[in-house]
Amino acid sequence: MSYNTFGRLFRVTSWGESHGPMIGCVIDGCPPRVKLSEADIQAYLDERKPGRSRFVTQRREADQVRIVSGVFDGMTTGTPISLIIENTDQRSRDYGDISTRYRPGHADYTYDRKYGIRDYRGGGRASARETACRVAAGAVARKVMAHLGASPPIIRGALAQIGDIAADRARWDWAVTRDNAFFAPDPEIVPLWEKQVDDVRKAGSSIGAVIEIVADSVPVGLGAPVSAKLDADLAHAMMGINGVKAVEIGDGFAVAALRGEENADPMRQENGKTVFESNHAGGILGGISSGQPIIVRFAIKPTSSILIPVPSITRDGEHIEVATKGRHDPCIGIRAVPVGEAMMACVLLDHMLMDHAQHHGGRGRDLPPDQP
Amino acid sequence: MSYNTFGRLFRVTSWGESHGPMIGCVIDGCPPRVKLSEADIQAYLDERKPGRSRFVTQRREADQVRIVSGVFDGMTTGTPISLIIENTDQRSRDYGDISTRYRPGHADYTYDRKYGIRDYRGGGRASARETACRVAAGAVARKVMAHLGASPPIIRGALAQIGDIAADRARWDWAVTRDNAFFAPDPEIVPLWEKQVDDVRKAGSSIGAVIEIVADSVPVGLGAPVSAKLDADLAHAMMGINGVKAVEIGDGFAVAALRGEENADPMRQENGKTVFESNHAGGILGGISSGQPIIVRFAIKPTSSILIPVPSITRDGEHIEVATKGRHDPCIGIRAVPVGEAMMACVLLDHMLMDHAQHHGGRGRDLPPDQP
Amino acid sequence: MSYNTFGRLFRVTSWGESHGPMIGCVIDGCPPRVKLSEADIQAYLDERKPGRSRFVTQRREADQVRIVSGVFDGMTTGTPISLIIENTDQRSRDYGDISTRYRPGHADYTYDRKYGIRDYRGGGRASARETACRVAAGAVARKVMAHLGASPPIIRGALAQIGDIAADRARWDWAVTRDNAFFAPDPEIVPLWEKQVDDVRKAGSSIGAVIEIVADSVPVGLGAPVSAKLDADLAHAMMGINGVKAVEIGDGFAVAALRGEENADPMRQENGKTVFESNHAGGILGGISSGQPIIVRFAIKPTSSILIPVPSITRDGEHIEVATKGRHDPCIGIRAVPVGEAMMACVLLDHMLMDHAQHHGGRGRDLPPDQP
Amino acid sequence: MSYNTFGRLFRVTSWGESHGPMIGCVIDGCPPRVKLSEADIQAYLDERKPGRSRFVTQRREADQVRIVSGVFDGMTTGTPISLIIENTDQRSRDYGDISTRYRPGHADYTYDRKYGIRDYRGGGRASARETACRVAAGAVARKVMAHLGASPPIIRGALAQIGDIAADRARWDWAVTRDNAFFAPDPEIVPLWEKQVDDVRKAGSSIGAVIEIVADSVPVGLGAPVSAKLDADLAHAMMGINGVKAVEIGDGFAVAALRGEENADPMRQENGKTVFESNHAGGILGGISSGQPIIVRFAIKPTSSILIPVPSITRDGEHIEVATKGRHDPCIGIRAVPVGEAMMACVLLDHMLMDHAQHHGGRGRDLPPDQP
Repeated sequence: MSYNTFGRLFRVTSWGESHGPMIGCVIDGCPPRVKLSEADIQAYLDERKPGRSRFVTQRREADQVRIVSGVFDGMTTGTPISLIIENTDQRSRDYGDISTRYRPGHADYTYDRKYGIRDYRGGGRASARETACRVAAGAVARKVMAHLGASPPIIRGALAQIGDIAADRARWDWAVTRDNAFFAPDPEIVPLWEKQVDDVRKAGSSIGAVIEIVADSVPVGLGAPVSAKLDADLAHAMMGINGVKAVEIGDGFAVAALRGEENADPMRQENGKTVFESNHAGGILGGISSGQPIIVRFAIKPTSSILIPVPSITRDGEHIEVATKGRHDPCIGIRAVPVGEAMMACVLLDHMLMDHAQHHGGRGRDLPPDQP
Repeated sequence: MSYNTFGRLFRVTSWGESHGPMIGCVIDGCPPRVKLSEADIQAYLDERKPGRSRFVTQRREADQVRIVSGVFDGMTTGTPISLIIENTDQRSRDYGDISTRYRPGHADYTYDRKYGIRDYRGGGRASARETACRVAAGAVARKVMAHLGASPPIIRGALAQIGDIAADRARWDWAVTRDNAFFAPDPEIVPLWEKQVDDVRKAGSSIGAVIEIVADSVPVGLGAPVSAKLDADLAHAMMGINGVKAVEIGDGFAVAALRGEENADPMRQENGKTVFESNHAGGILGGISSGQPIIVRFAIKPTSSILIPVPSITRDGEHIEVATKGRHDPCIGIRAVPVGEAMMACVLLDHMLMDHAQHHGGRGRDLPPDQP
Repeated sequence: MSYNTFGRLFRVTSWGESHGPMIGCVIDGCPPRVKLSEADIQAYLDERKPGRSRFVTQRREADQVRIVSGVFDGMTTGTPISLIIENTDQRSRDYGDISTRYRPGHADYTYDRKYGIRDYRGGGRASARETACRVAAGAVARKVMAHLGASPPIIRGALAQIGDIAADRARWDWAVTRDNAFFAPDPEIVPLWEKQVDDVRKAGSSIGAVIEIVADSVPVGLGAPVSAKLDADLAHAMMGINGVKAVEIGDGFAVAALRGEENADPMRQENGKTVFESNHAGGILGGISSGQPIIVRFAIKPTSSILIPVPSITRDGEHIEVATKGRHDPCIGIRAVPVGEAMMACVLLDHMLMDHAQHHGGRGRDLPPDQP
Repeated sequence: MSYNTFGRLFRVTSWGESHGPMIGCVIDGCPPRVKLSEADIQAYLDERKPGRSRFVTQRREADQVRIVSGVFDGMTTGTPISLIIENTDQRSRDYGDISTRYRPGHADYTYDRKYGIRDYRGGGRASARETACRVAAGAVARKVMAHLGASPPIIRGALAQIGDIAADRARWDWAVTRDNAFFAPDPEIVPLWEKQVDDVRKAGSSIGAVIEIVADSVPVGLGAPVSAKLDADLAHAMMGINGVKAVEIGDGFAVAALRGEENADPMRQENGKTVFESNHAGGILGGISSGQPIIVRFAIKPTSSILIPVPSITRDGEHIEVATKGRHDPCIGIRAVPVGEAMMACVLLDHMLMDHAQHHGGRGRDLPPDQP
């Protein structure tokens, strides 16, 4: 069993290899009559695109998306939306020795052992190039959410840390994340990161990072206990991004050191609205959104492709040293920011549709309890 | 849409409320002809059972499991296995004011807002009591794995940290985890934890924890990219356990601070077998198991039920203070150890079946590549 | 992979063997705040119950249902509803020779070959006893549909044919189907069927039947092309009932002999409503309900358990003759009527929830088209 | 919820509209290392292609398939296989009045009412053009089955009846079905059908048909009771083909008139193999394949597009008469033969993988029963 579909009602099936003719995805379950154009999607793809600064890979991909089904007269029709992105930068070259050499930290060895065959050109299916499809799907999800309600969720991502240099919470400003090459929320951290990534790049090495994604304006009640809890689905979505090794919600690992009263989020009412006095929970209680901001962080490992040689083996078990020449991201965490945002969008929309399905007809949440 | 089924091929559907007549689960997709008795399951349930020490809740539940379908003459038949556990400690009492009071940190508020109704007795569906069903399913999964192969995965869990006191890696010994009340892998940490949990309990408070689950002897090749990656499925499984706020694989969040060469796991061959010289990756590359030990850690928050009052509201928005009297776990992380082990067992078996399905007939992984 | 769950959003997982301690099902995805009692379900179970007339099996089962989760204070909570029915008529006897003898027409041979083991007592999992769970689920589905809308679908079933004696269309009267032992819609056919079934029973034989299920008041727009078409899902549901060998929608097989103009259902408007002048299509066009009555018919084979000996083999390949003594239905088609109704109810509700999910927020179907 | 994926382990997601730029499908779960080329698929597509005789639509589509992912060096890699077919015969014309006119028997009305929007060009998503994707998927399924075993299932389809003229069972010859324009298994019926279809075509009308699909060499044990029975899944697959109104397995509707002893399929052993003396059951018992040939028949309605005017309405409720000019199939049943074969192939392979998943490790079916 292979499994390339994510989502339960807003279902995205992605396909394609890094150096095949194209990659793409099919979005099934999209509500009809949502205005959607290629430009709506392209804007988000451009944020993830390689080659935008010296801090990311210099691969040159136009990443131009085409909508080839499911949209008519500028609106979704409720039928599957097929998106296609051509791979334009497939340099013709000899992949001969790559085909049998296992790059440490990559999926070469595990794909080969699982399938007995792999498309070794540029990582094939295991390449982070696949995440372009998720960004495209996330763009559609955002359009749908904006269509469905007057105050749709606001999803924002930022790079919170590169190496051991973290953005300063006191200076955190969502407004500036698109003003620099790092999606940094803290302008003063930018020169430090520039220097660090330059150093790493010049050393032929790479460096890890932490990404933070926050969703505001999320309706209360999203999450389907006990096996489709909102936090579990977000953990699945984020851990599934290439290179991610850790995910946390709200206070995350820090909760281990807290006492009950320190971790509690007291509640009160203000003008008829429920207000939480803190958000240790990261907006999710019992797997269901509480109406507070949803806060997710994830750590991404340093790019495995580095110029520094690492001992490895060939398919036949010979000992070799692998050093990856050519274009690579010194910090793949940077381009993971729009990917994390897109996954948040897809998961939230999926749960909005799930929640709505169960509350068919408006009964349930919206009604006051019956009198006994 | 509600969703109480986990797994794709080894599918577990759990049901039941904390104070209803019983809880249970249905396991669908279990291979036939596996020897299985109630005692096989009971052994694991007893580890999670309340009342085993003064460090866990004093609720008295026999947690006696019954197999009511799917097993005949002591063997599974390949049809659904229905497991039932009666709730025996449902004290008859007046739940009147609980019904409208929202306990901070619990799912009271979110369930009420999602469903417009909730079974408020003891947490209802949101109670950690539900995890008994997962432990039962995990016990079945372990029996099946032992049936399927000569060297099945070995799954072991331990409590790695309570509050800010962590077990010492240098003293880590899996052999002792069942010799103390904490599933501690480090005998010398036990008195420190005893004191800490006693202090917390006497103060009417609670404390967080970190659990570590390791699986050895995992076959290479488990994991179905890109939407059922093994690490993503483990993250989903662990984050779905009540109170969990963070999950990491291998080096987890620490990878953020690493350089590529520090994070690399060099490979070599030894006696015809692939050997990794380190395991920063935690046994998973590209979402597929590498044959190394799979290492998962998760953080669990301090129990929200504490004697220390926390400001909250009623269903009608009145301001109240909530202090939870009665029996509760001062550190829910302790009893989460067998739950984490069970989830690991379920996820691994599910992926073993998935992997086998795609490699029907032994072609694929097991064969050398065809000559071109 | 075993698979005992039907439905996509209203999901029913059934379990249990004919002669185990109990059978049951778990209903996941039920909307919350629907009034539901055991009596609501029992009424439908009683219609399917054995022993109600001399024309059905004389097995004595109380078929008493218990709701053991998911309902609180008389209302559904949105969490899984677990239903349990104890098997009370498990006569203690020696099943020795049944265990290795394959009854022709039964699933003995195929279960044994598939699983290498089977619960041979009374058919085990393959027994039509399992359909009690479907009837129970259908009862819940009807309650939900009544809750969701002012004019819910009206589902009615009847026995249309026994052997070669068919009910007369001209005398068809839904009001009388519960007034006789056959669910006959035609009072004049009853004495003919009584004689026929008595003859068959006395001869130690059995006889086939055709059942018709009609749903009126079905909203337009149900059905999810192209892989969850309403007619395909109904075909799946009906063909999955024990003994069913054929399913048709609307004119069914008769369409083969029609010309386009004979098969067309002309449309007109009357008082602002769309009216079809005929219903060859059986209420479904392109896999989507048209608002016309949905008409399904299915044929059910004669009971395979007969007193007349049939050549067969044992598990070890010895030649034997099998004649089934004891209690059996001479015409299993009779008790299939409430089962067919229940499946119709489950499928329709599932599609109502699916349709609603995609049309989140009321956009889509309900709005006039935007002006270009 | 929209739903365009069929299969559980061999999963096919189809997309595309009749007059969009292209149609296609994504096949997920295909075993790796299966030799596969575009020519393998093209051969089957050509059989379904329009314009092959005067008895089918004269639309000119090359129906040229491209494999754009999942195949490397001529072999499947175990990753998603994306197939694309460009629509080449999209005549540029004014679709103005079609956009608001509801063609009787088509899905125009129901799509419009469900989605509030539809791609009205040539039927859009509801067009039988979509079945090209199923034929392509079926071709892949056949290649996989041939790869998996030495004696894979042999799947053959034929047109059994056009209008009221049925092929003669006594003359039935699978060898000749590809020698005529009708997939007729009976050479002598061909001139009669030619005349009939010519008459119908000249009259501007259309005619219904019955298709029969038989699979030989099917392994015993396929089918996952009780909700993925093989017969139920086949019924779903066939009823989901455009225009199908009835499906039967084995004796189908004829069982209604049979007595138990007439319907029984006696069994014996011959040279250590189980032999059935008849096949009323159509190769399926209790939802599981018995090793006998699997026999499925389905009826397909006359094409709704006819020159003879039928009363209808516009979107705004105005009364009109609809007569469909232009190219259409006088008997859509003809081109449904390869579609039915393809669906049989997909369902069988899906169940082969499902069965294998549950019997991981060879235990189960293959072993003799343990001694008690």
